[in-house]
Amino acid sequence: MSHPRETGTRLDPRWDANGLITAIATNATSGELLMVAHMNADALAATLATGEAHYWSRSRSELWHKGATSGHIQRVIEMRIDCDQDALWLKVEPAGPACHTGQRSCFYRRVEEGGLILDVNVNGN
Amino acid sequence: MSHPRETGTRLDPRWDANGLITAIATNATSGELLMVAHMNADALAATLATGEAHYWSRSRSELWHKGATSGHIQRVIEMRIDCDQDALWLKVEPAGPACHTGQRSCFYRRVEEGGLILDVNVNGN
Repeated sequence: MSHPRETGTRLDPRWDANGLITAIATNATSGELLMVAHMNADALAATLATGEAHYWSRSRSELWHKGATSGHIQRVIEMRIDCDQDALWLKVEPAGPACHTGQRSCFYRRVEEGGLILDVNVNGN
Repeated sequence: MSHPRETGTRLDPRWDANGLITAIATNATSGELLMVAHMNADALAATLATGEAHYWSRSRSELWHKGATSGHIQRVIEMRIDCDQDALWLKVEPAGPACHTGQRSCFYRRVEEGGLILDVNVNGN
């Protein structure tokens, strides 16, 4: 743990070539993994300022206030960052499904030998 | 949910420009988020074949059998994939710390206004 980015107390995200870091949202109550998205500096600043998850939409190339149109806001209960500061973990209180398909979690399929199994009973553990 | 990649039962990862997808490991028992890494096709195939987490090390540009040198193997209990198949969720039974820093989880710091707080009491919920 020699690098200050790993040991320090300064928020110093390691943005990738596109100016993004990975952002993972879990349900703060159940621990369920809800979705994986990305944040740029603006999205992170907006999330910190409002307490509601903001991401960077790579498909639309725009700041994405999660739930702004659907109502499925994610209130951030806790935010963590990993050792090399290229991934954020948001524990959120979701006001509705996380997935654009209408599923509570984007991870509604299990990977088994030979293919995927639809299994919407997603649990954190 | 119109795209077959989102609705189907075929494992069809959406590899990025570098041939990678995001892989997230949580503790299958506690739900704790352990680490965020990446997999290429070889890493995914090795994980499926052995039941132990294999990643692609971007820093070393090589297949990385987690725990091969440290002993901190991650036995995969369940694997899930997200709607657009660019992120995997591995629920694992870890034989030791997930983080190269020696921490159980890479997410040992909370993000607060003004900076990071060391807080190793990482819980899934």
